[in-house]
Amino acid sequence: MKIYEEKIAPNARRVRMFLAEKGLLDKVEFEQVDLKAGDNISAGFRQKNPIAKIPVLEMDDGSFLSESIAICRYFEVKYPKHPLMGTSPEQQAIIEMWQRRCEIYFMNIVGMGFQHTSGYFSDRMKPVKEWGEVCVKSIPKFFQLLDAHLAESKYIAGDEFSVADITAYVTMDFAKVIRTRPSEDLVNLKRWYDLVSTRESARV
Amino acid sequence: MKIYEEKIAPNARRVRMFLAEKGLLDKVEFEQVDLKAGDNISAGFRQKNPIAKIPVLEMDDGSFLSESIAICRYFEVKYPKHPLMGTSPEQQAIIEMWQRRCEIYFMNIVGMGFQHTSGYFSDRMKPVKEWGEVCVKSIPKFFQLLDAHLAESKYIAGDEFSVADITAYVTMDFAKVIRTRPSEDLVNLKRWYDLVSTRESARV
Repeated sequence: MKIYEEKIAPNARRVRMFLAEKGLLDKVEFEQVDLKAGDNISAGFRQKNPIAKIPVLEMDDGSFLSESIAICRYFEVKYPKHPLMGTSPEQQAIIEMWQRRCEIYFMNIVGMGFQHTSGYFSDRMKPVKEWGEVCVKSIPKFFQLLDAHLAESKYIAGDEFSVADITAYVTMDFAKVIRTRPSEDLVNLKRWYDLVSTRESARV
Repeated sequence: MKIYEEKIAPNARRVRMFLAEKGLLDKVEFEQVDLKAGDNISAGFRQKNPIAKIPVLEMDDGSFLSESIAICRYFEVKYPKHPLMGTSPEQQAIIEMWQRRCEIYFMNIVGMGFQHTSGYFSDRMKPVKEWGEVCVKSIPKFFQLLDAHLAESKYIAGDEFSVADITAYVTMDFAKVIRTRPSEDLVNLKRWYDLVSTRESARV
């Protein structure tokens, strides 16, 4: 199997970190796609993913799977060892709730904040600076929400490390690109961030 | 179990449609939350969901679960009959990919288009009109993508009806609120929309 990705892209990092946690990194090879050069918006790449985003997993039968969390789901169900999406109905639901919270109200907001304030992709989209600034300004509120939650929870979705931690952690690092870091008094968030930083998967 | 929702809200409709398809509607009672009046942003509601969104599922043990797809996941895993999220690793991944495509590049875009052009929630958020217009204008492209895909696929994620159809169908109806409908020449999209409209779950 092969994954098309760009190493520095946060969604690519989510999938690599997920595979590392499950001990599955050696199941796939990686091919780099140059987003800035527009490799992903070429007609050829759109045959792999019509949405033109990375990462994309090429399966052994030649079919393609995209959307980071769908790729993670594939590996989770195929290789249930070291579960990162929970096992019981309650656990699966709570992890999915927190994964989605961290994605929708944090990762996607940081992503739009980056794209609309930096103009990084202005060759292919029209940045709306005012919207980008609204996004960036809203991030500290989510840091506070996470901090309050982590006062009572070891990891984002309970006592066990999960895919929700991966989304939150990768986004914390991505947010640094737009110079957005949690304020120092958010000690629970810092405790959790330092804890996740000790994992080997944080360095792949 | 109880679901806090607002009947006309698209995310609430997704969960009701999901439950109807699985024959589980009678497992829960529903309590209406008045979004326009701000019931969801009250301190009391934030104890149920700090993100202040509906729907929220109150479990029998008094805990709360939010995020529509996490609520769907709970019922899917707890009651595997009539699967809407697939069974094999491949099927689960393909359904998740399409569910996410329909949600991220369609439902969320329609939602932002609505909020930022209508000013419906301008008492609690600052609409950025230019951004809302960018969102609204981008919707026809997704209609075309869906139409091309549905030329070769009975339902959104293959031969079987799934949660991806629910997200796409509910969003098609939601898009009408901002006067956005697919053009008449998208015959595959129309064929699929009419097919889903015949299901009983489309009317709950």
